[in-house]
Amino acid sequence: MKFVKIKKEEGIATAVLSRGKVNALNETVIDELTDGFRRLAEDGDTRAVILTGEGKFFTFGFDIPEFLQYPRESFVRYLTKFTDLYTDIFLFPKPVIAALNGHTIAGGCMLAISCDYRLMVPGKAKISLNEINFGSSLFAGSVEMMKFWVGTRYAERAVCTGEMYGADEALRMGLIDQIVSPEELYAEANKVARYYSGKDGAAFRSIKYLVRKSLADDFMGKERESISEFVDIWYSENTWKNLQDKVIHG
Amino acid sequence: MKFVKIKKEEGIATAVLSRGKVNALNETVIDELTDGFRRLAEDGDTRAVILTGEGKFFTFGFDIPEFLQYPRESFVRYLTKFTDLYTDIFLFPKPVIAALNGHTIAGGCMLAISCDYRLMVPGKAKISLNEINFGSSLFAGSVEMMKFWVGTRYAERAVCTGEMYGADEALRMGLIDQIVSPEELYAEANKVARYYSGKDGAAFRSIKYLVRKSLADDFMGKERESISEFVDIWYSENTWKNLQDKVIHG
Amino acid sequence: MKFVKIKKEEGIATAVLSRGKVNALNETVIDELTDGFRRLAEDGDTRAVILTGEGKFFTFGFDIPEFLQYPRESFVRYLTKFTDLYTDIFLFPKPVIAALNGHTIAGGCMLAISCDYRLMVPGKAKISLNEINFGSSLFAGSVEMMKFWVGTRYAERAVCTGEMYGADEALRMGLIDQIVSPEELYAEANKVARYYSGKDGAAFRSIKYLVRKSLADDFMGKERESISEFVDIWYSENTWKNLQDKVIHG
Repeated sequence: MKFVKIKKEEGIATAVLSRGKVNALNETVIDELTDGFRRLAEDGDTRAVILTGEGKFFTFGFDIPEFLQYPRESFVRYLTKFTDLYTDIFLFPKPVIAALNGHTIAGGCMLAISCDYRLMVPGKAKISLNEINFGSSLFAGSVEMMKFWVGTRYAERAVCTGEMYGADEALRMGLIDQIVSPEELYAEANKVARYYSGKDGAAFRSIKYLVRKSLADDFMGKERESISEFVDIWYSENTWKNLQDKVIHG
Repeated sequence: MKFVKIKKEEGIATAVLSRGKVNALNETVIDELTDGFRRLAEDGDTRAVILTGEGKFFTFGFDIPEFLQYPRESFVRYLTKFTDLYTDIFLFPKPVIAALNGHTIAGGCMLAISCDYRLMVPGKAKISLNEINFGSSLFAGSVEMMKFWVGTRYAERAVCTGEMYGADEALRMGLIDQIVSPEELYAEANKVARYYSGKDGAAFRSIKYLVRKSLADDFMGKERESISEFVDIWYSENTWKNLQDKVIHG
Repeated sequence: MKFVKIKKEEGIATAVLSRGKVNALNETVIDELTDGFRRLAEDGDTRAVILTGEGKFFTFGFDIPEFLQYPRESFVRYLTKFTDLYTDIFLFPKPVIAALNGHTIAGGCMLAISCDYRLMVPGKAKISLNEINFGSSLFAGSVEMMKFWVGTRYAERAVCTGEMYGADEALRMGLIDQIVSPEELYAEANKVARYYSGKDGAAFRSIKYLVRKSLADDFMGKERESISEFVDIWYSENTWKNLQDKVIHG
């Protein structure tokens, strides 16, 4: 794989996002993650997965310059793949631990909140669904997963203001579960993965589905419509201008 | 309008409840609010709305002496208008900020929790869905909006006990978002309205609907039945006696 | 009744689990509780119910040695009765207060979280849905009731890890409502029962149903399938071995 490195050690697989400085998500990254997670789901030797990023970013979200070149139909295809991926992770039959090594923004935050547990580094790194601040909407599942972790009140505030949360505030809200120094991040994530994967696999999957399945069924039923509205707004005059400004001025 | 004053300044509309000492809600107030909010929804110059009250009360709720004169069919008509109004506000396409200048009780609390953000004065002012304490039930939407803000556990306790919360406790529960002195209430509400309305309007509406729309669809489907049960209990012997005692002894 | 003692005093009924050292739940206990609660629901003199246990345990859950003798169809019959019972309590038309006098584990925790309010003794007593730790799954309603009290994030952690919570942690999570010394447990539970049952009965039932009914309808619709999956896992090789080890080694 080009942008996702997967290694396995003693039953724990680690998938590392590795694409440039900010691990920007494009269609190849999503295809590779989708494929990787599907294979790990079926791999009898894998008991848990850690999802992390290389460098100072978990991921900064979608590769906007690249998507500004996409015609509408291609963008819809990409978004469908992307929301399918976070749903796959949300319903992954084994524990998935997110080791947030740095900024976890927009589409990156969506991947993080589809996992079972989040560890995050302290300091400057932020986590946020900040789409509204460049005039973009969200997807049904992304909003429902945010509600799942922090409750409706904090979720609405997060998505309607696009506020950026440091690890302390994210922990207080319930958006992450643990703060760990960069040096110990991998070892701690591994410890959590071992703790969760020490449970009986069939019971774990069954219970995880009791918690999540009907919620996921519900948002899957709304995803296509939410993508369509997302795309309408994305290509609207105001938002398009914001996106171009964002690309030019960072 | 007779009991609702609406003023506009730099894109922020303010609707002020202004009916006697306690801003008691009657059919005229609800008609005026409904009409006012519908016009503000369509008004291209209005980017956000502040809802507040005159004097020491936001509103003490329904004008019970007046409703004790209502025959059942008229009361059902009023309640349908009232629950339609809080649903309109809950799904208002622009930010609605509640500036709770004083007691926010029963029907008044329902209007407050249909907004996006609540500022409340400290001191003696209370916020409560206290209907149970005069033997009255509630409406489906009012219960769901309470759950939305404070979660099911606190919501159930609030509605099953009718406890009255001061600003400190309301903030701790998540029932309000900010405590502000009466002198600064309007200026602070205005600041919040500007903050929320600074977001792209189309993205804001789209995201607010992703958070709220299916919840509202769900409670709208139960509202008629809940009104019917509410009215059965309202006109029952016990509750009717409580209501009359309440009117006589305050 | 053999294992459930019911006494009534001034409108408050108390049901006491009384079966051996750990108040283990078997089919007779569940039949007696079901019958007891149905009669108390209809008893015009009963305004509230307290559910508690004798000795150092509220209940340690299912009587596993006994159920290891059950053929599959009998076990399904028992589980259907059991989930019907906690649904009856969850929708009981009068207040039900759980006085948790000691360990409240697995099936015992499910009964506790179907009540309206929980008081628990401090010290060594634990409360937990620990099924995963002997390789067992759960039932749809048990998971939804856990979400109801502590929110989805804490609920998922509780059911996927099977962690045992002391009273302090349970209170912090919202899993219980009050910590009371063993000496004062009954008096305090009685005080709470009087407080809740002081409300108008028709309004209380109506409001409780507004909060809980559609949630219960939803999980009742999934209960049969969840029982079927529970039983598949229960009789699987791994879990069966765990259960036998548990019986032999305690």
